[in-house]
Amino acid sequence: MSTRREFISNTGKAMVAGGLVTLAEKGDSAMIENKFIHHVYFWLKNAGSKEDRAKLIEGLQKLSKVKTIKTFHIGQPADTNREVIDRSYAISWFTMFDNAADQQSYQVDPIHLKFVEDYSHLWSKVIVYDSVDAK
Amino acid sequence: MSTRREFISNTGKAMVAGGLVTLAEKGDSAMIENKFIHHVYFWLKNAGSKEDRAKLIEGLQKLSKVKTIKTFHIGQPADTNREVIDRSYAISWFTMFDNAADQQSYQVDPIHLKFVEDYSHLWSKVIVYDSVDAK
Repeated sequence: MSTRREFISNTGKAMVAGGLVTLAEKGDSAMIENKFIHHVYFWLKNAGSKEDRAKLIEGLQKLSKVKTIKTFHIGQPADTNREVIDRSYAISWFTMFDNAADQQSYQVDPIHLKFVEDYSHLWSKVIVYDSVDAK
Repeated sequence: MSTRREFISNTGKAMVAGGLVTLAEKGDSAMIENKFIHHVYFWLKNAGSKEDRAKLIEGLQKLSKVKTIKTFHIGQPADTNREVIDRSYAISWFTMFDNAADQQSYQVDPIHLKFVEDYSHLWSKVIVYDSVDAK
C-alpha cells in the first residue's frame, strides 16, 4: 500500500482509531456503526463574552481527557445560514463512545463532574442529542 | 505494529479514513480537526409511522453516496433521558466533510436534490447544526 487512503479503499473495511469507523462498501465514505453519539450545544449566559467562550473551550479540552471518549470535536457555528440551521449556539461538543455504558460512565466520571462544577456557571442553556444506530 | 490501534497509539498522530481524525497527544481519544460537521435531526409528519421512518432511513442510505461525505451516521434517539436531552426527533443524520466547500457542494449534489424531492414529504421539521473547529 502506498497511502492509508488506498489501503482503506482496497480493503473495503477498516477498523481505525480503536474501532471508530467501518467503511461502507461503496467508496471512501466511512459509516459510523455500533457507536453512541453524544452531541451537546451550549448557549452562553454572557452571549457576547469572548472570555467566557474561551473558558468553556478550555473546560471542554480538559473534559476530553475522560478515558471512555473515543472521538471528540469542539465546534462553533459554521458560516452557513439557512432557515433550518440553528446557528445561535456558542459552542458545540461532539463525543463518540463505544457504547451506552461508556457514555453513562462518562456522565459520572470525576473529570466530568469537575467540568460541571467549574464551568456550568458559564452557560444559560444546553441541548443534548444522544443517538445510536437507527435500527 | 501488531494492530491498527497500537499503530495509532505509538505514533500519536494519524490520518485515517482519508484524513478523518488526528489524534490528540494524550492517549486513545481522537480529536476531530479541520472538518465541517453537519448534523441534522428529523421529525416525521406521521410520528408513529414505522413505514415512513424506514423510508427516511432508506433515503439517507442513498444520500450517503454523495462523494464529498467523508463520514456519516444514521441515528435514532438513545435510551438516555434527562431534562437537557431532546429525544423527540425520529432520525438523526450526521455527516462530516473536509471543508465548507465540500458541504456546499453536497447541498447541490444531484443525489441530495433527489433525496429532498423524494423524501421531504416525510418530515414535518428539521433542525440543522453546522459546526467547524472552535477558534
